[in-house]
Amino acid sequence: MSAIDHLLHANNAYVASFPGARPQRPKLRLAVVACMDSRLDLFGALGLDIGDAHLIRNAGGLPTDDVLRSLAVSQHYLGTREVVLIHHTECGMEGFDDAGFRADLAARTGDVPPWDVPGFSDLRATMRDSVAAVRHCAWLPHREDVRGFLFDVATARMDEVS
Amino acid sequence: MSAIDHLLHANNAYVASFPGARPQRPKLRLAVVACMDSRLDLFGALGLDIGDAHLIRNAGGLPTDDVLRSLAVSQHYLGTREVVLIHHTECGMEGFDDAGFRADLAARTGDVPPWDVPGFSDLRATMRDSVAAVRHCAWLPHREDVRGFLFDVATARMDEVS
Repeated sequence: MSAIDHLLHANNAYVASFPGARPQRPKLRLAVVACMDSRLDLFGALGLDIGDAHLIRNAGGLPTDDVLRSLAVSQHYLGTREVVLIHHTECGMEGFDDAGFRADLAARTGDVPPWDVPGFSDLRATMRDSVAAVRHCAWLPHREDVRGFLFDVATARMDEVS
Repeated sequence: MSAIDHLLHANNAYVASFPGARPQRPKLRLAVVACMDSRLDLFGALGLDIGDAHLIRNAGGLPTDDVLRSLAVSQHYLGTREVVLIHHTECGMEGFDDAGFRADLAARTGDVPPWDVPGFSDLRATMRDSVAAVRHCAWLPHREDVRGFLFDVATARMDEVS
């Protein structure tokens, strides 16, 4: 049985306990931007209920153009006002070698991918840059409440970066 | 108390029950791509445990360049092999007017954003296109097990699109 079939089996049990329809607009008026890391269960870690918040995730949790696009949709059309950014310890993008990765992909496939793969070295400095990038994005109408946290993958504790 | 402070309070309780450190590489060798929608709790809906799978999410759950970048990192560096794509009923990107949105943002700010905001009309046709886009991405080494599902936000049931 593939991993996917295993998950579909679990979905049957979930359906039985699902609370049912909720409004499309997030109840807490909040969007969370976080890394794709497998140890980050945002519903659990933040005590979220179904319908509470938008969850936007990519490799690193950095505010790429695609994240800013998603935040713009979230705020303009779906009523969110606050933004939480979450990076975490032991991230795969810490120390990531973008130039090396792109050269490796080009060597394997004959084509250089059109995207950068931004890594970082200093977690706290990167979070300050990420918060600043959201605060400076002119296409977002709500930028007063933007806060950044580091999630510790060993303890689940969230540490605010200010 | 802001929404964010409410969540930090919940995090304290989560820390007490957190199972502790897990390896960086996802145990199920799986990456899930889904919409940011607030009604999609992927840990719950798929029965995931901490450390099981990468979760990549944006507005719509479409395989944008940023999603393909994240999948490339996931497969090349963190060992995943299967991909699940999840779109859902009542999506905010269904019928979304990209040209109108961009014109609206430009009128408010004086600048046209550098990103498209792709909407869609036919959920099943869009999912078939999304699966095909991942299967045709030459920078991903594992493209045999790519499957697409529609999540029903009223029942939590997952319906495979083939």
